[in-house]
Amino acid sequence: MSDQQNTTREQRLIANIKKWTGERLIGDDCAVLPSQMLVTADTLVENSHFIIPGISFPDLGWKSLAVNLSDIAAMCGRPRFAVVNLTLPPQVTDRDIEMLYGGIVDCARAYRCRIVGGDLTAGSIIVISITLIADTHENGISLRSAAKTGDVVICTGDFGASAAGLWLMKAKLAGFPHCSNKHFRPLPRLCESWSLIRNSDGRAAAMDASDGLADALVQIGRSSAVGMEVDEAAIPIHQQTQDVARLAGADAMDWALYGGEDYELVATIAAERWLRMQQLPNNTFKKIGTVTDKHSTILLKGAGGRSYPLTLDKTFQPWS
Amino acid sequence: MSDQQNTTREQRLIANIKKWTGERLIGDDCAVLPSQMLVTADTLVENSHFIIPGISFPDLGWKSLAVNLSDIAAMCGRPRFAVVNLTLPPQVTDRDIEMLYGGIVDCARAYRCRIVGGDLTAGSIIVISITLIADTHENGISLRSAAKTGDVVICTGDFGASAAGLWLMKAKLAGFPHCSNKHFRPLPRLCESWSLIRNSDGRAAAMDASDGLADALVQIGRSSAVGMEVDEAAIPIHQQTQDVARLAGADAMDWALYGGEDYELVATIAAERWLRMQQLPNNTFKKIGTVTDKHSTILLKGAGGRSYPLTLDKTFQPWS
Repeated sequence: MSDQQNTTREQRLIANIKKWTGERLIGDDCAVLPSQMLVTADTLVENSHFIIPGISFPDLGWKSLAVNLSDIAAMCGRPRFAVVNLTLPPQVTDRDIEMLYGGIVDCARAYRCRIVGGDLTAGSIIVISITLIADTHENGISLRSAAKTGDVVICTGDFGASAAGLWLMKAKLAGFPHCSNKHFRPLPRLCESWSLIRNSDGRAAAMDASDGLADALVQIGRSSAVGMEVDEAAIPIHQQTQDVARLAGADAMDWALYGGEDYELVATIAAERWLRMQQLPNNTFKKIGTVTDKHSTILLKGAGGRSYPLTLDKTFQPWS
Repeated sequence: MSDQQNTTREQRLIANIKKWTGERLIGDDCAVLPSQMLVTADTLVENSHFIIPGISFPDLGWKSLAVNLSDIAAMCGRPRFAVVNLTLPPQVTDRDIEMLYGGIVDCARAYRCRIVGGDLTAGSIIVISITLIADTHENGISLRSAAKTGDVVICTGDFGASAAGLWLMKAKLAGFPHCSNKHFRPLPRLCESWSLIRNSDGRAAAMDASDGLADALVQIGRSSAVGMEVDEAAIPIHQQTQDVARLAGADAMDWALYGGEDYELVATIAAERWLRMQQLPNNTFKKIGTVTDKHSTILLKGAGGRSYPLTLDKTFQPWS
């Protein structure tokens, strides 16, 4: 599994952009500014990331801010200010915009950040681009590059549910609220991230699994020049996700690894910190593997001791 | 001329967004954050703000950052960090993206701000959304609401040239570099804005004329609850703009008032400050009128003493 194979066009472009701009602040989930601020930006594009009416305007508003908050959670920051850029086609009504903003404001209130400005433009498709400014946590920042051999690989929540929610939407099926909620109203793991940085004494590697669990594991491995062994049986998959996968004739583990949009945290911390952290009454992280010294090789240990390396071939790649 | 008539859909939506979010930081060219920071965001959308190949990728890159820098200039801030969100269709090549970034980087270097991050997404049209973070100037902030009766109305540069440049592009004509440059490579008036805030002792009303001179005058008048008398003959219009208007069978004054995209500063300062400022050897502002106590009434004084109120009917309104 060479690095070549696992490089998407997006990753190549980001590497180029670093070169063109001469900037070292680019590349993690957020940029870290000299003044102890974090800045991140994420864009949702109609027909690439969502379709109308597949998603309701309130859900679209919630999700467009939540995906940015999740990038802040990936670095354990404290969200402060959001700037909301909307590009809207003429057929979007004032009432639609009110509902869209309703969702944004609900999410902003839940996670205590302020909407301080933005821009409205006309265009042929809906584009929602939000920039979020956050303070760094007083205990430190979690970087993708901070993983060390011997660390424990941990995660929040469960995986594959968002892919299941997407399938349900396309199939026009209801009755699996966990999956639909994970897809339409993701809950960024901010409190969990603060717990992580506090309990890791400021040295944790983390990333949000917005492009799938496999992508998060590979990115952390590559940035930290380490490998991982991950126990398939330990990867949390919700019962509803299993049920929907059965309905869809899909593999729930494939959804978990490659589906994306779960907005859970994937992190590594020192083994002795994990021993302490897992005993905390409010701990929500689960151990799924360990960090090895095999540079960029993510081994999945399946049932019966079978082991195979993870590939990113199946990852969501709008750029391929 | 009632306020009703002069309220665009965009202005109504912004008023609503303030209500929905309960935020007072929204509404001027930038949001002013509690920590003496300014944040602004502007989006350029293919087929709304530009067409390919009407604009080259390097020019598009330059312009997309320049329009944001112009919003910072409107509040006399010092640009620091830019976050660049690109939505790109599959037919945009790596080489196109390199040229686009080349233009962004050229502009960032010229105006000394750093590109610290961003996001790449796929979509059916090109959308460039840049968020800019700036420090406030040590002498203060210019607000749209700071104009007072008796102030002098001043501006930088000249007006209508960008509209002329747009016409030239559509007509596939060359030979008027002032107009083409103003349209494709606007120069945000940052140094000028710092001179303004220094020489006004920190009390100036300002706005960039991105939606036209008429819009800027009306917005400052409305925000400050004042009126203005503007001398038509004093409005600077470049000779090339006059020439292109003649070719186009258009009215150069219409382009100046309503064409938009000139990215010049329109400001008001106390009359006694202006007396001092206009004598400075490097002063680049010109006086075009005075502030009156007639709330929201902008009177244009034409040739022969004829006076007429300004209306926004002809203003660029993607939202109407």
